Amino acid sequence: MPNPRTAIRILGLLLILEGFFMWLSIPVALIFHEKDSLQFLLAGAITSAAGFVGYVSVRKAKLEVTKRDGYVIVTSGWLFFSFFGTLPFLLTGAIPSFTDAFFETISGFTTTGASILNNIEELSHGVLFWRSLTQWLGGMGIIVLTLVVLPVLGIGGMQLFAAEVPGPIPDKLHPRVKETAKRLWLIYVAFTAIEIILLWIGPMNLYDAICHSFTTMATGGYSTKQASIAYWNSPYIHYVITLFMFLAGMNFTLSYFGFHLRFRKILSNEEFRYYLGFVVIFTMIIAAGLYFTSEKDVEQSFRDSLFQVVSIITTTGFATDDYLLWKPFLFVLILVLMFVGGSAGSTGGGPKVMRIMILVKNSTQELKRLIHPNAVIPVRINKTAVPNDIVANVLAFLAFYATIAFLGVVLMSFLGNDFETSLGSVAATLGNIGPGIGAVGPASNFYEIVPAGKWVLSILMLVGRLELFTVIVILSPAFWRE
Amino acid sequence: MPNPRTAIRILGLLLILEGFFMWLSIPVALIFHEKDSLQFLLAGAITSAAGFVGYVSVRKAKLEVTKRDGYVIVTSGWLFFSFFGTLPFLLTGAIPSFTDAFFETISGFTTTGASILNNIEELSHGVLFWRSLTQWLGGMGIIVLTLVVLPVLGIGGMQLFAAEVPGPIPDKLHPRVKETAKRLWLIYVAFTAIEIILLWIGPMNLYDAICHSFTTMATGGYSTKQASIAYWNSPYIHYVITLFMFLAGMNFTLSYFGFHLRFRKILSNEEFRYYLGFVVIFTMIIAAGLYFTSEKDVEQSFRDSLFQVVSIITTTGFATDDYLLWKPFLFVLILVLMFVGGSAGSTGGGPKVMRIMILVKNSTQELKRLIHPNAVIPVRINKTAVPNDIVANVLAFLAFYATIAFLGVVLMSFLGNDFETSLGSVAATLGNIGPGIGAVGPASNFYEIVPAGKWVLSILMLVGRLELFTVIVILSPAFWRE
Repeated sequence: MPNPRTAIRILGLLLILEGFFMWLSIPVALIFHEKDSLQFLLAGAITSAAGFVGYVSVRKAKLEVTKRDGYVIVTSGWLFFSFFGTLPFLLTGAIPSFTDAFFETISGFTTTGASILNNIEELSHGVLFWRSLTQWLGGMGIIVLTLVVLPVLGIGGMQLFAAEVPGPIPDKLHPRVKETAKRLWLIYVAFTAIEIILLWIGPMNLYDAICHSFTTMATGGYSTKQASIAYWNSPYIHYVITLFMFLAGMNFTLSYFGFHLRFRKILSNEEFRYYLGFVVIFTMIIAAGLYFTSEKDVEQSFRDSLFQVVSIITTTGFATDDYLLWKPFLFVLILVLMFVGGSAGSTGGGPKVMRIMILVKNSTQELKRLIHPNAVIPVRINKTAVPNDIVANVLAFLAFYATIAFLGVVLMSFLGNDFETSLGSVAATLGNIGPGIGAVGPASNFYEIVPAGKWVLSILMLVGRLELFTVIVILSPAFWRE
Repeated sequence: MPNPRTAIRILGLLLILEGFFMWLSIPVALIFHEKDSLQFLLAGAITSAAGFVGYVSVRKAKLEVTKRDGYVIVTSGWLFFSFFGTLPFLLTGAIPSFTDAFFETISGFTTTGASILNNIEELSHGVLFWRSLTQWLGGMGIIVLTLVVLPVLGIGGMQLFAAEVPGPIPDKLHPRVKETAKRLWLIYVAFTAIEIILLWIGPMNLYDAICHSFTTMATGGYSTKQASIAYWNSPYIHYVITLFMFLAGMNFTLSYFGFHLRFRKILSNEEFRYYLGFVVIFTMIIAAGLYFTSEKDVEQSFRDSLFQVVSIITTTGFATDDYLLWKPFLFVLILVLMFVGGSAGSTGGGPKVMRIMILVKNSTQELKRLIHPNAVIPVRINKTAVPNDIVANVLAFLAFYATIAFLGVVLMSFLGNDFETSLGSVAATLGNIGPGIGAVGPASNFYEIVPAGKWVLSILMLVGRLELFTVIVILSPAFWRE
């Protein structure tokens, strides 16, 4: 049995912090002379107060957090954040329905970017600031989760980095967990700051630069414009955002090496090479396809291809073009990318490049095993043999991913959506991407989905974001047995 | 390097046999007073002669067949059978195009059942008899392949039956390979004979009863009627064919136990229980769905659901109803079933229940492993622990299946098909089912697919039928290295 006392105390602390973050919308409202400052004050106060009540109600919690507590804290953390995170939307009247507000908020904190808004530009700057901030905070949570918490729980591709992250001297990021988290956050903040400056010196104002940098680094994809990045008809903006989407989809441990100018360390990393390979190959094929099947010139074919490929593989979901209008085989390539996802240890969602890599390597090794049945032929990553139980874990992950996706598609089609919309909405939310295919493509939104469908998709966003197991483990009977 | 001498000699023998089988259409043509007997005589003569030339050209082949020879013989065997199998279609003029004739023939020998014919009832009885016979012979080949040859090559779910098939006394089917093959064929022939009689005493003539029994037991699905089984508006016919599709989708080793009245042996088999479970659960859900969303009464809802579910999970592809006209969520359930397939050791295609079962068990065990990280928790089937390398093999199989399917969908959409048709045609051919979704649904056919698409799908049928690895291994560079 998990210990509810520890969970409540930690969640209380987190909610107090969330309340403070809501108050950041107050100066935004004041600067733009908007009338919703009081609503933000109230929303933050309620959230912090609720957190405070939780925190003080259990004064003597055990200091040590067990693994089981870990699962509960992580899952309920994202749920509580999303629950209270609706307050700025509800109190300002920006999103009147609770279902819609919850969908929009959990889509923010899970850095999905699927939106029910079809009137983004009518919303106040303060509200849109909070909306972008939910993704940035979600991204921070993900970094700590995937690089610090999940390896301890035995989930995610990151146990493979055991030798990388807390490993032997000169390669280790830093042995102590708190220090590790701090350094990763520093990189996250630094990248965000650099992107803000680069966007600001281009044709984008400071406010939009901040909001979009928040949602780029989180691979979230919320925009302050209904047209997303297509609003800026500027190659400079497109390339800058592409670069930072790509960085956000990289393992943050590798970025740490980058900051120390140890680029060989990055280039020799196998997951990075697969990630780069996917981006290069898909960009080239789609660019060629766009050039020969549309009116676009070489540069625009390349740029539109690159932007959309990076946006989808990193699960950001920004758009400068509507891939549903491309020839079917080009949009099928985008659909394939939806089932790849970012690197392990990035803010990207989806199955992750790491798992696809293990899949590919295990498959090629299997052929060798068939030809040489008596040889022991392990899967190797960065020259280290991957243990059998990791292969079993990847198989289980992909099986759960496929099963949950199938169930999601059946449910969504049961709720009246056509096949493409069902498939697209499930792929886009379970993979934390944002836009999908069918009626929820990049030029559209999730407004028309029925309320029950929005709840189904909200659950998929949460399950996908927490690497499936974190949520599924809690739902298994064995978890609750002593 | 494989030994071409052995391969050529064995293939020669097989072609001589194929030629004799073509002559079986001659009495059919004579009985129905049709004028294409000479064409069948010629087709058979050419095929047998080609086989004879191959057989005598390499007189002193080594007796022993290596594993590498095995891969080559199996793959080229299916290809040569399909190549010469076009002769009856081409010489009679029933199918004038070689591409179409090859598609129809390989669809027969792989027991897929995808057809380019949109004028079935115009063809002569002799031609349709040959068409049905290709499936029945393909089914015979599959039984030997999956239960006798592939386990030796280390491919397929059947190595799991090591303890079942050639195992310790009272359970073993029979230790010697030739004997095993003979006994399995006897069951295959016996089932076919019983089905012929049962269909014949119902409202079906002897000729149709023979053709449909051939294609039922092979889980092939070729019909002598354009409307498939829907032509017979007879519950009796529907239930009889459902029963034999179900039997054909069972492991033939279990049927052997059934013939010896050892039913407990069948009921305690885990793959059988999963297989039965899939059929029961999907039939119930879809029957309820049809009852509440259509004009059908209880019996017809049940019968249409059961028939279509069994037809798709066994990858037969017969139809008594067009599932594309059902509500989207009901047809999504059918689409899910397309990725299950029959039991290992049956004539059914697809990924197979066995692999899905290992996937499910590995996933639930993984949850237990996460909760109890220090315990050793293996996957067990029929109370035996499944070795790790089998789990890695299943992962590789599913990865190849998904990759080939993705590539297929990209190619088919590149050739101008819409997304649903691309997905449907690939799922239907790679899984050896027959009808798919989109423009190649159960009420339609593959006539409109462009020639390049028909070749892509022909390759998918072959790759899917030979459990992927048999073909992929040959294409891997390591195979050709000494």
